[in-house]
Amino acid sequence: MKFSNRVGSMQASPVRKLVPFATAAKKDGVKVYHLNIGQPDIKTPEGFMKAVRDFDESVLEYADSVGSDELVNAMIEYYKGYDINYESGEILITNGGSEALLFAMMTLCNPGENILVPEPFYTNYNGFATSVDVQIRPITTKAEEGFHLPSKEKVLASLDENTRAILISNPGNPTGAIYTIEEMQMLAEVAIEKDLWIISDEVYREFVYDGLKYTSFGNLENVADRVIIVDSVSKRYSACGARIGSLASKNKEFIAQVLKLCQGRLCVPTLEMIGAAELYKTPKSYLEEVNKEYCKRRDTLYEEIMKIPGVVCEKPTGAFYMVVKLPVENAEDFVIFMLKEFRHNGATTMATPAENFYATPGLGRDEVRLAYILNCDDLKASAECLRLGLEAYKAAGNK
Amino acid sequence: MKFSNRVGSMQASPVRKLVPFATAAKKDGVKVYHLNIGQPDIKTPEGFMKAVRDFDESVLEYADSVGSDELVNAMIEYYKGYDINYESGEILITNGGSEALLFAMMTLCNPGENILVPEPFYTNYNGFATSVDVQIRPITTKAEEGFHLPSKEKVLASLDENTRAILISNPGNPTGAIYTIEEMQMLAEVAIEKDLWIISDEVYREFVYDGLKYTSFGNLENVADRVIIVDSVSKRYSACGARIGSLASKNKEFIAQVLKLCQGRLCVPTLEMIGAAELYKTPKSYLEEVNKEYCKRRDTLYEEIMKIPGVVCEKPTGAFYMVVKLPVENAEDFVIFMLKEFRHNGATTMATPAENFYATPGLGRDEVRLAYILNCDDLKASAECLRLGLEAYKAAGNK
Repeated sequence: MKFSNRVGSMQASPVRKLVPFATAAKKDGVKVYHLNIGQPDIKTPEGFMKAVRDFDESVLEYADSVGSDELVNAMIEYYKGYDINYESGEILITNGGSEALLFAMMTLCNPGENILVPEPFYTNYNGFATSVDVQIRPITTKAEEGFHLPSKEKVLASLDENTRAILISNPGNPTGAIYTIEEMQMLAEVAIEKDLWIISDEVYREFVYDGLKYTSFGNLENVADRVIIVDSVSKRYSACGARIGSLASKNKEFIAQVLKLCQGRLCVPTLEMIGAAELYKTPKSYLEEVNKEYCKRRDTLYEEIMKIPGVVCEKPTGAFYMVVKLPVENAEDFVIFMLKEFRHNGATTMATPAENFYATPGLGRDEVRLAYILNCDDLKASAECLRLGLEAYKAAGNK
Repeated sequence: MKFSNRVGSMQASPVRKLVPFATAAKKDGVKVYHLNIGQPDIKTPEGFMKAVRDFDESVLEYADSVGSDELVNAMIEYYKGYDINYESGEILITNGGSEALLFAMMTLCNPGENILVPEPFYTNYNGFATSVDVQIRPITTKAEEGFHLPSKEKVLASLDENTRAILISNPGNPTGAIYTIEEMQMLAEVAIEKDLWIISDEVYREFVYDGLKYTSFGNLENVADRVIIVDSVSKRYSACGARIGSLASKNKEFIAQVLKLCQGRLCVPTLEMIGAAELYKTPKSYLEEVNKEYCKRRDTLYEEIMKIPGVVCEKPTGAFYMVVKLPVENAEDFVIFMLKEFRHNGATTMATPAENFYATPGLGRDEVRLAYILNCDDLKASAECLRLGLEAYKAAGNK
């Protein structure tokens, strides 16, 4: 009984494959600080459940394949707040940002073609691509440079004749980097010169700190016909379980192509769209409060992490992740050590090994991604665990 | 700006592409009897919304990639009622039956490989396959033979060295056919001899009439390791908008492969699973009532359709569709005529042209699919519209 190469060669989720070790620790009564996942503890705005509870149709019917008018219209208004002008017919609602990314890849690339992505990148980019026979070509960025992009020449040198698109996450997961307007204009130039699409994953749009100015690819007029914006309510409104994402583009032909995929799977859930429409009407003050909270968490975790001898970490300016270079040879081995062997005050810390966030073999072996999604006291305790755990790891003879 | 061949060559949904004609008619005040879509008017069991309304977590979190324990356990109990024994770890919850089908195709077939499917088939089978570079190879079945399968020799002659699976819909959409145990055993023999998977789409499992005995592929022990059951709450519990489907298989390696795809898209919606778990606990009496209602509707529509001179239609024994051969050359042209030009008592009827339910070019051009999802009075009126519409179509000089 054979399986396809595309799914056969997909790696199991690096974020989820260590879960059994955490489960075993918890069964032993150990408290596990989860810095490994992007599940926020922020309250979902109450409008979501209120609207869902008010649903009183006697039949839970199919929705429109493009998404509900209410949700699309709420998103149009939301985008206007960022000077991004989309109209009805330019937005498709998807099953999370995940389906948006998968549909974009399927629509733009034949098997064997590729997409340029700055590494380290959200590891599921590689999963989606592999599952539909698309390759990820990395543009390597470095912790020491705050994960900013290399020169235009290096970006041009990274692509080949089979490159169809540039995919970025901005603010970046796992890097926490925010691209400058100059970096984005450089990518826009490359896209125009090489006739590439730009897929801009902006699900962390509001998670920008230190008063930095954030520019969306939806603001760049010169590439409007080749830009595809991926969005999601998951992180923005702490509604990961709603699985409501979207694709937006001024390129009507692109929308028409993706619509065929949307029609094939009929629609996204009716109730989730009812709730999500309310989310997109949430006052900006909610997002500002959340932003403040994450900024505080970032400062707390960063300060504690920098107390650990031998780490390399540039303070991130966006999203809610940081990539930390540890003074170890194999970060995954260290993460497993933490879960299996190390306890401090009955607790341990779970991080995500970063190697799978890279496409270039060998890179990231000594790095982990930390998500600062816990309250500040827990973040302090979790960083202390990491510091003491590293000492114990070394003391046990590990390199 | 180029698009991929796979999405470029997908046909727009034949069910949905005629919708603008219906919309225009409705704007003119015309009542449109929708026999074209599988959206039931049966009430969704109240347990769904009750459970959803009771959700009171403050954060709407990600669920497990495999699906919630509650839903999986409810499905295990449900299957036991049909002597189908699945355990935890053998069922994956998906975004509708649609995602289940897409994931199965991606997992079993490399680009260029193919799946054997009796035609006419659910047209989105072709859409899913095309979108991931898989081909559909048809086994032609005929209205005059009640859409039953041809001989084993003919089935064997339909496959080639690139065939990886047999996909059936049983009860059949659009045919309404129920396969006999002998037909299923024949397919099982072919699968064993040629080392093929069997994907059995059984979303209409309860829609079986005339006291016929229904056998699931989950009941055939000799192919347990190569059978994949696709299910959905959409039709079974009139909950199309929930988008909750599933894949089940005793083949643990298959489940492990698909799990990678499930982990990539993280999870299906948390709330929909809470509701769906209640659906699968619905007493069988609900399904029996629904069955009776559809049986009555089938009898009503079939009786009325057979009054139309020149039609060919075998009385279907399952699902809620019938394929009707009309005395016209081009059924799509007739369907458009009905929507644009024909009115009787201020109403008209919308059918689905059946050509796109076939992979063999030229077949089905004179056929339509009718869904008997309206109440009996409306079904009578809609059939009368069809009969008078055909007369008018012919009188206007159409062939």
